[in-house]
This record gives sequence, structure tokens and C-alpha cells, in this order.
Amino acid sequence: MTQTNEIRPTQAARRSRKQLRSPKPEVRERLLDAGDELIREQGFPELRVDAIAARAGLSVGTFYLYFEGKDDLFTSLVVRHTERIRAHRREATAKASSVLEQLTLGLHAYLDFVEENDRGFLYFRSAGSVQTNVGDLKAWAFAQHANDLRPLFEAGMANGEIRKQDLDLLVQATLGAMQHLAGYWLENRERFNRAQITAFFLNLSVSQLAPRPEESAS
Amino acid sequence: MTQTNEIRPTQAARRSRKQLRSPKPEVRERLLDAGDELIREQGFPELRVDAIAARAGLSVGTFYLYFEGKDDLFTSLVVRHTERIRAHRREATAKASSVLEQLTLGLHAYLDFVEENDRGFLYFRSAGSVQTNVGDLKAWAFAQHANDLRPLFEAGMANGEIRKQDLDLLVQATLGAMQHLAGYWLENRERFNRAQITAFFLNLSVSQLAPRPEESAS
Repeated sequence: MTQTNEIRPTQAARRSRKQLRSPKPEVRERLLDAGDELIREQGFPELRVDAIAARAGLSVGTFYLYFEGKDDLFTSLVVRHTERIRAHRREATAKASSVLEQLTLGLHAYLDFVEENDRGFLYFRSAGSVQTNVGDLKAWAFAQHANDLRPLFEAGMANGEIRKQDLDLLVQATLGAMQHLAGYWLENRERFNRAQITAFFLNLSVSQLAPRPEESAS
Repeated sequence: MTQTNEIRPTQAARRSRKQLRSPKPEVRERLLDAGDELIREQGFPELRVDAIAARAGLSVGTFYLYFEGKDDLFTSLVVRHTERIRAHRREATAKASSVLEQLTLGLHAYLDFVEENDRGFLYFRSAGSVQTNVGDLKAWAFAQHANDLRPLFEAGMANGEIRKQDLDLLVQATLGAMQHLAGYWLENRERFNRAQITAFFLNLSVSQLAPRPEESAS
């Protein structure tokens, strides 16, 4: 199994990276933080390696000891964010009693991330397809979320909170709709606030998931 | 208003196109057909301009009289396909009496397209983000479908077939889920056949759209 700190793009490396004997995790984090900040401020297309190094207070040479280029840094950021959302969601949902409550808290955790990352999220959604050693980066990130949602829906089907239907397709449809709506919201913030998106999605989920009256009566 | 045959990428032109005084629509179509076939056979990343010209029985020089490069041709293909799906959907749904029937026939028309184009669709979904004179190409295509679905849902809300909720968000969530499921299906054809995808999505839609018993009773 590939460790998440080993996920790297398999194309687009402009410069091959010198292997450090003892890379310093705190230097790598500083570069990631700098890249993250600049993507939020300017977006990914404008991102330059020299600006990342300057923001981190390091040299361009040091940048290339840790990353092969901006695609490589972007890949590491997506991996880091995916893990952070998952940790945030696990923490937020730990005390929930019902499946619907877990889903609600999980949605809040996801929207926190989307709202905080805004441009980075939109770039990832529209163009952030990078081939890596774990396959397509977006497919990888999506699969992580699907892995988290599957046992939740499975439990809901077992305890009667969720109508029985194909588990995988339900997970995919839910995540597909949620990711798309999140992007639509960011692109139309003058028309929709977060509370509207949340209310709409939860209402939709209740309709999708809840057993139909005739089924629950049987 | 920009005519659809004028939609072009605004970046990535490697070679600027000589303007033809009297371009021949049938030559352009031959090049588009050749590109379309090759994308289905090999995928977009492998596509080469010389192969397109050879398949069309034309010279590379002729190719560059009609397109600036493979991104430009891809853009025209997306535009052409979007218009064809819409025409196919309009034709298929013309005789439907209910909103649900229209939605069902529209879903079939969309899945016909997805199935037929397979690799081209997957490339478009994961990486086909191209900036054009009408903005992001994927956003443009999505907006076309949204424009078609909106009046249908609006009519359904008016005649009571669809529960009243935010119209735009419902359109976006439906399209987001449908596009994502279509891609998931293509990537997992050994696990899901088309009938399963169709049945799952229509069942989901009925749950999402239909008025709840307590509401329809009021």
C-alpha cells in the first residue's frame, strides 16, 4: 500500500529532484503552507515556484530539493487536504447518534473545507487532473471520501434509516451531487449562501435516503 | 451572442491559423469525424494532428487551415457533441406526456451519448477544461444542459409532479449526480450494466423530485 506522503505525479516533472538524505518535514510543511496560501490568494495557474520559495523564506534551490515542480506540490496539497477533511469529519461525526446526524456533520466539515480553500477547490474540480503513482489524483481523492461514506450508508441500511438500494451507486451519486453543488455555490456566492446550500442538500438527502412510507410500513 | 461554431480555446494555440476565405464545411466535418474516431480508439492524450489528417485523407497543412491544434479540435468536438445530445434529447422527449417520462427519455439520450463516446467522455470529465471565448468549456457545456432541464423542472413544480424546492440547485444537483454516475459506470462496466445505472438513477430521481405524501395531501 502506497503511503500518502509518497504520492507523486508521474508526468510533468520539469526537473528531476535530488534525493535528500534527511529531508526535514518542517521545511516541506513550510513550502506546502506557502503554496497553499498563494493558491488561495492568486489561484493555481498564476502560482510560481520562486514566489512559493520567497513566501516560505527559502531559496528556489531548496524548493527543488523537496518538490519536482508546482504540479508535484499541488499533488501533495491535495493529499494533505484530503486527509485533513477526513480527520475533521471523523472528529466532527464521532459523537453523532444517527446516520442523518453524521451526514449533516460530515456535510458541514466538507463545506468548511470548500469555503476555506475556494480557488484551490475550484481549480482541483475543473482542472486538477494529475496522473500519479496511485492513478488519477481526483479519482484517488474521490475514492477516499467514498470509503468513508460507504460504511455509514451501510449502517443506515442495516438499521432502517436508509432505504435499501445499491450502496456504491448511492455513495457515488451523493458525492457527485455534493461536490458539484459545492463548486456551483462558490461560483454563485452572490445568489446562494452556505445555509441555503446546506438546507437544500440535506433536504434532498432525506428524500433520497429515507425509506418510502409504503416500504417502512411493511 | 457567440455562435457555437465560433467557440475557440483562448490558450494553447501553438500555431496561429491562416484565415481561409471560403472554408469548406465538409472538410471541417471530415477532420472532426477523424478526430472523433481516433479519440474513441486511442483516447485524447495519444491524439496526434498528423494521425487526424491521415485518417481524414488530408494533409497536415489542411488541418491547420481549419484548426489551431488538437485543443481547438477538441473544443469543436465538445460543442458539436453538446448540440447533438441536446437535439437527440429534444427529439426523444417531444412526445412525452409527464415530466418523469421526459426525464427518463432524456436520461436514455444522455447515456446513449456517454456509451458511444466512452473515452472522449471520460477525458472531458476528468481533464477537458479548456478556456475559450465563452469561458470554461466544461462550464459552458454544463450550462447548456442546465438550460434544458430548468423549464422541465419548472413545469413539474407548477403541475405538482415535482416537490417545490430551489429550482437551480435541483437542476445542478441532478446534473452533477448524473454526470458523475455516468463516469463511474464507464469506469466500472464489469460491475454495472446500463440498465442498473438507469434504474438506480430514476429511482433516486423519483425520491428526490416527488412531493412528499404530507405535502401532496395538503
